Amino acid sequence: MRACGIVVEYNPFHNGHLIHAQQSRQKTDSELVIAVMSGNFLQRGEPAILPKQERAEMALRSGVDIVFELPYHFAVQHASIFAEGAVKLLHAAGCSSICFGSENGRIKPFLDQLQLEKEYHDVLQETIREQMKLGRSYPSAAAESYRQLFEHKAGLDLSRPNNMLGYQYVKAADLNASSMSPYTIKRTASEYHDESLHETYISSATSIRKKMFEEGLSEVKKHVPEATFLMTESYINDGGQLMNWERYWPFIQHTLLTSSPQSLNNIYEMEEGIEYRLIAAAASSSFHEFMHQVKTKRYTWTRIQRILTHLLTKTLKTDVQQNSSPSYLRMLGMTGKGREYLNMHKADFALPVISKLSRKHEELCAIDIRASKTYAMGFSDPVYRQKMISRDFTAPPVIL
Amino acid sequence: MRACGIVVEYNPFHNGHLIHAQQSRQKTDSELVIAVMSGNFLQRGEPAILPKQERAEMALRSGVDIVFELPYHFAVQHASIFAEGAVKLLHAAGCSSICFGSENGRIKPFLDQLQLEKEYHDVLQETIREQMKLGRSYPSAAAESYRQLFEHKAGLDLSRPNNMLGYQYVKAADLNASSMSPYTIKRTASEYHDESLHETYISSATSIRKKMFEEGLSEVKKHVPEATFLMTESYINDGGQLMNWERYWPFIQHTLLTSSPQSLNNIYEMEEGIEYRLIAAAASSSFHEFMHQVKTKRYTWTRIQRILTHLLTKTLKTDVQQNSSPSYLRMLGMTGKGREYLNMHKADFALPVISKLSRKHEELCAIDIRASKTYAMGFSDPVYRQKMISRDFTAPPVIL
Repeated sequence: MRACGIVVEYNPFHNGHLIHAQQSRQKTDSELVIAVMSGNFLQRGEPAILPKQERAEMALRSGVDIVFELPYHFAVQHASIFAEGAVKLLHAAGCSSICFGSENGRIKPFLDQLQLEKEYHDVLQETIREQMKLGRSYPSAAAESYRQLFEHKAGLDLSRPNNMLGYQYVKAADLNASSMSPYTIKRTASEYHDESLHETYISSATSIRKKMFEEGLSEVKKHVPEATFLMTESYINDGGQLMNWERYWPFIQHTLLTSSPQSLNNIYEMEEGIEYRLIAAAASSSFHEFMHQVKTKRYTWTRIQRILTHLLTKTLKTDVQQNSSPSYLRMLGMTGKGREYLNMHKADFALPVISKLSRKHEELCAIDIRASKTYAMGFSDPVYRQKMISRDFTAPPVIL
Repeated sequence: MRACGIVVEYNPFHNGHLIHAQQSRQKTDSELVIAVMSGNFLQRGEPAILPKQERAEMALRSGVDIVFELPYHFAVQHASIFAEGAVKLLHAAGCSSICFGSENGRIKPFLDQLQLEKEYHDVLQETIREQMKLGRSYPSAAAESYRQLFEHKAGLDLSRPNNMLGYQYVKAADLNASSMSPYTIKRTASEYHDESLHETYISSATSIRKKMFEEGLSEVKKHVPEATFLMTESYINDGGQLMNWERYWPFIQHTLLTSSPQSLNNIYEMEEGIEYRLIAAAASSSFHEFMHQVKTKRYTWTRIQRILTHLLTKTLKTDVQQNSSPSYLRMLGMTGKGREYLNMHKADFALPVISKLSRKHEELCAIDIRASKTYAMGFSDPVYRQKMISRDFTAPPVIL
């Protein structure tokens, strides 16, 4: 069975994701679509609005056949590590292709860019270093360097966020000598960061979340597949809450008010004395106010959010090994076709599949388990929270 | 001017405390009463229902002339360290006497007991050790040893909580060669732990707190001086909340769910592997449920509460020096007469008086400041919380 891999966050699953899954299957001529999805904390360093189990089920009800969890260690990371972790998992799961959405929409410019970058490797690194000396953050320095060196050369505009992320997948697949063929489809209508809902009902996840929080779930009905709407509705009716950073702010605040700079410095990515800046702003009355106080040109919003996610989950420098590879495929759910695929191919997978977490996985999956428990702290009802704390162990994978 | 010292927690100030302050003044023939009071966290390892500033003002409006804060380091401690810190502060503040309430009500049995204990010092220590080997907690082993060795000898029943605490004051004054004369007055009506409100309107603080939480403030009107009632009412009207452990439970839970046993072991009083017991019960749905899960015969409720207070405030083993003495007198408030006394005698005090905390005290008072910030986390309104976080620096002492 031919499987196409996709890399997703589904925060939440919307109409654009539906099209991505459908077109990935068609374009790559695959029988099934396998998604690698961030867990409860996302690449940009924020809690997902819905738990990973709900987000996985939404995807399975809307065209995805298997959802594997991208471990925290790779999910809450710069685009390059995120992409590398995801690509390695899709490769390990036997995907013969990977298909991503991009503003560009054609794969050739990505492959041309890859060749160009190999030729100019040393010059590029040097240019990025120089840009950082001017006070730019790494993402900004990299973007500027790519612009200076490659603009109009390969025909790929890397200042567009999905082109850049897609390019990371292509690079990661190449670096790891993966046999997966890369494909891309053109993202339609909305931009990634577009905050206003679009008339064509393909809206960005950002605008959908904003509308959910400000105007209620019913307002986004047209912008998401029915499964997303119904599942979110019943999740809320059952006592679930939509998460955002504000719900975790008291825990960040308590930690900052009681910790020494020395102990904060043990947290992963806590570098260059940023801990002093965080402590100084700890009395803020909201997460939003706090972020505005601590962010600078060099410390971007995303970079600080990732540091705070690590602080919230107490992910230490000693917890995270550099240059490591994923060591398991944590299956969050699958359709009947997904199950058929697993039964047929699982034995050939490069990594073990974990379908049901048990005590024996406690060490292997320690960071992911801690991240789930931490995510549970966002629920205000203590009994619901208690259920969520142990959910990694009690919830079987979603099987449709 | 002749001052009598008293050691208090005022959680909250009630009619029994009013009588204690009045009788202390009369019995010791003093012009004024100076109280050393626990701050926001109390001897039994719990948050006070009201912040220290409100509790100090209640006392000043009801017969106390100066309130000094017993530093966290001495307040959240076994009775003997608590008593020693308090006695040293009263001595440093020039008190010529100390007067405590006790079930016994006469001072002679306390002094007799002191002589007896000096004679039997080695036997007592040996008996306590033997009792602990039988699995008893230290307080229980000590109580049993005192009973075995001294019952009916000095005529002091040390199984009564206020006799025992008062005896610690007498012992501390003697140990530190204080010139303060000890006095005691008989506690009337209610027992310390009595949970039902007493007809005579002298009720225990425990029963008053219970009624406040369960039936509302108006139900305790007859059991507290008018100042306590009015101040609590206006505190609540201004957005203040009555604190208890449940309000801090999410912070304890978050810390336990994300910390390794090794890092928990750095917390003061975290001994004998109790950290594993705490982690194992961390999914509990309330503080109360958690406590019932972790407490044992050896780990009493109070002992665990103190450990949890240290965990909440991140008070580390390295923060607490053994056998240290208080190094400042933090003045929370005073009456006109109190001010007169300070002006007259302050120059002769053995310790500096801090009336207004400023940045220069940050190191000296670090644990107290951290405890105040931690206490502030119990307030659910983020703007009110913000105000409380910096209150140690912004609130001037109460001056009546």
